[in-house]
Amino acid sequence: MAVYTEVSDDELEAFVAQYDIGAVKYYKGIAEGVENSNYLLSTDCGSYILTLYEKRVERNDLPFFLGLMDHLAANKFPCPIPIHGRDGASLRDLCDRPAAIVTFLNGMWPRHINPSNCHELGEAAARLHVATANFTLERENNLSLAGWKNLAAETEVGANEVVTKLTQTVAGEVTYLEGNWPDGLPSGVIHADLFPDNVFFLNGKLSGIIDFYFACNDFFAYEIAVCLNAWCFDTAGNFNIAKARNLIQGYNSVRPLGSDELEALPILARGAALRFLLTRLYDWLNHPKDAFVNPKDPLEYLYKLKFHQNVRGLAAYGLNAT
Amino acid sequence: MAVYTEVSDDELEAFVAQYDIGAVKYYKGIAEGVENSNYLLSTDCGSYILTLYEKRVERNDLPFFLGLMDHLAANKFPCPIPIHGRDGASLRDLCDRPAAIVTFLNGMWPRHINPSNCHELGEAAARLHVATANFTLERENNLSLAGWKNLAAETEVGANEVVTKLTQTVAGEVTYLEGNWPDGLPSGVIHADLFPDNVFFLNGKLSGIIDFYFACNDFFAYEIAVCLNAWCFDTAGNFNIAKARNLIQGYNSVRPLGSDELEALPILARGAALRFLLTRLYDWLNHPKDAFVNPKDPLEYLYKLKFHQNVRGLAAYGLNAT
Repeated sequence: MAVYTEVSDDELEAFVAQYDIGAVKYYKGIAEGVENSNYLLSTDCGSYILTLYEKRVERNDLPFFLGLMDHLAANKFPCPIPIHGRDGASLRDLCDRPAAIVTFLNGMWPRHINPSNCHELGEAAARLHVATANFTLERENNLSLAGWKNLAAETEVGANEVVTKLTQTVAGEVTYLEGNWPDGLPSGVIHADLFPDNVFFLNGKLSGIIDFYFACNDFFAYEIAVCLNAWCFDTAGNFNIAKARNLIQGYNSVRPLGSDELEALPILARGAALRFLLTRLYDWLNHPKDAFVNPKDPLEYLYKLKFHQNVRGLAAYGLNAT
Repeated sequence: MAVYTEVSDDELEAFVAQYDIGAVKYYKGIAEGVENSNYLLSTDCGSYILTLYEKRVERNDLPFFLGLMDHLAANKFPCPIPIHGRDGASLRDLCDRPAAIVTFLNGMWPRHINPSNCHELGEAAARLHVATANFTLERENNLSLAGWKNLAAETEVGANEVVTKLTQTVAGEVTYLEGNWPDGLPSGVIHADLFPDNVFFLNGKLSGIIDFYFACNDFFAYEIAVCLNAWCFDTAGNFNIAKARNLIQGYNSVRPLGSDELEALPILARGAALRFLLTRLYDWLNHPKDAFVNPKDPLEYLYKLKFHQNVRGLAAYGLNAT
C-alpha cells in the first residue's frame, strides 16, 4: 500500500484542466498497488484513477500499456480506459513523473476464491488473448528466462540467508528451464500479472481487470500458468483441482487450448513460480527499512515451485491430456 | 498514510447489509489518516467513509464523537454524517474493531494556504462552537495541561537526543503554563485538531470538516490557538499576519471573541504548540521501525513554541487588543 508522490490540489487542478472531464470534486491516495502512486479522482464527469508512474516503470513502455488498454476497451474488454486530453495524449507529466488518468472500474477483488471465480477468470484471459490478435504494438517479456537469470545472479548472495540452499535451488531451476523451456507455442499479448487483486467481481461476475503494467508478448499458456499459481492454491498451500479445472474450462470456452499448450503447463507453471519467487526474493533482500510496503513472502512461491517440480503429468492438476 | 486492518469483501458485504445503503460497488483503502483505518466505500446509494477505529481511539469516546457529528449535521454544519443501521446504531464491530460508516464529503484540503482559506476556517470554527451550545455530551480534553505533564514525563529520557536541552525546554514550559494558564474563558465543544488536512475546500469555499476524533470540551479560544499554529506559519517558519487577521475576522463574523479571549491568545498558542510538540515527540521516540506512517517532525512545533514565547502582545499576530 503506498502513495509515493504527494500531488497538491493546485497541481492536480492544473493537470485535470487539460482533459474534458470537468472540475475536481475530490481525490484520495489509495492504499493499493506496490509499484506506482494511485489516486481515486472524482470530477463532475465521474470517477477515475490517476496514476503517477514511479521508477520501476519504464517510460518507453507506457505507450504499449496505454495503447493496449485503448485497444482492449475498443474491443469491449472490461479494463480501465485511458482518458485522452484535449491534445489527444493520454500520457503526460505530473510532479516530474509520467502520469495518466483512466476510467474507474467498480467491483472488488475476491479475498476468498471459489471455483466460479476461476471460471470467469479463465474466460476473461482468453478474451484478452483473442482481442489482442490485431494489436500492433509489441513488448518483450523481460521477466522470462533471461530476466530470471539476471534476478538469480542479483539475489545469489542473500538467497541462502532467506532459506537454506535457496541459491542452489534457484540456479538448478534456471538451468532446467533453460534446457527445457518450450518454443513455438501460440503466443501474443498476455496480462502476465493476473493475481486476484487485479481482477474485480461484482455480484459473482467478473466486472473488470486492472494493472496492465506487466503486459507483454509471450505464450498464451504462460498466462494460465501464472493463474494456476495465483488462484488455485489454498492458503494452506494445497492445490485445488476444482479451481484449476474451472480455470481451464473457462478459458477453453472462449479459446480452446491446444494439446501442446496443455502438455507444456507443468513446465510453464514452474517458470511462473520461479518468476514470482525471484521478484519477491529480490524485493525481500532490497527493500528499504523505511518502505511503506512490506515485501511479500518469497517462500510461498518456493513451495509452489516445488509442487510443480514433483508433478508427473496433467492429472496432478485435475486435468486430462487432450 | 495507512490501512492497519484489511477488510475482506465478504466481511464488508455482511457489514454493509446491516444498513439501508444498498449493495457495495467498490471499496478502497485510503492513504490518509494516521490513527485509524479508512476505506472509501461506494454503494448503490452513494459514497461513504468506513472507519475502523484502531487502538489509539478509546471505545468509550466513540458515542461522543459520533453523537457530535449527528448533532452538527442536524445543525447544517458541513461534517460527515454517521449512517445508522436498521437497528438504529451507528457504531458496531468489524474485524474485531469498533467501526462506523459516515457520509463522504467532496473537496480537497489546501496544500497552499491563502488568507481567504483562513477567513473561511475562522467562520467554520465559530459556527461549530455556536452549533454545539445545546449538545449534551461532554468529553474532557485529555491533551491539555494534565496530559502535557504526562507526555513530558514519558518523553523525558529521549527528548535530548532529538534536540539539545529539549527536556529542560519542555519542563520549563509545562511549569510556566501551569502557573499562568487562564481559567474562566468561554468554553464548549471544540474540534481541537483543525489542521489543513481536516478542512476541505471546493472552488475556494470551505466544503467540509472531518476527523472529529480529538473533539472535546475546552476554551473556544484554544481552537483559535491551534489554528494560528497550523495555518498561519509559512513553510519557512515565518508567521503570516494576513492569515491570522483573516482567521480572527472570519471567527468574529459569527461569534465575536471577547477581550479576555483575545488577550489569552499568546499563552493559549504556547499551550497549543506544546501539545503538538509533545505528541509528535512521543510518536518520534516510540514509532515502530516497520510502521506504515512516518512520524511528523516535532521540531516544527518547537520553533512555533519559541515564536510564541517571544511574543509581547497581540501586535505580533497583527491583531489589536479590543
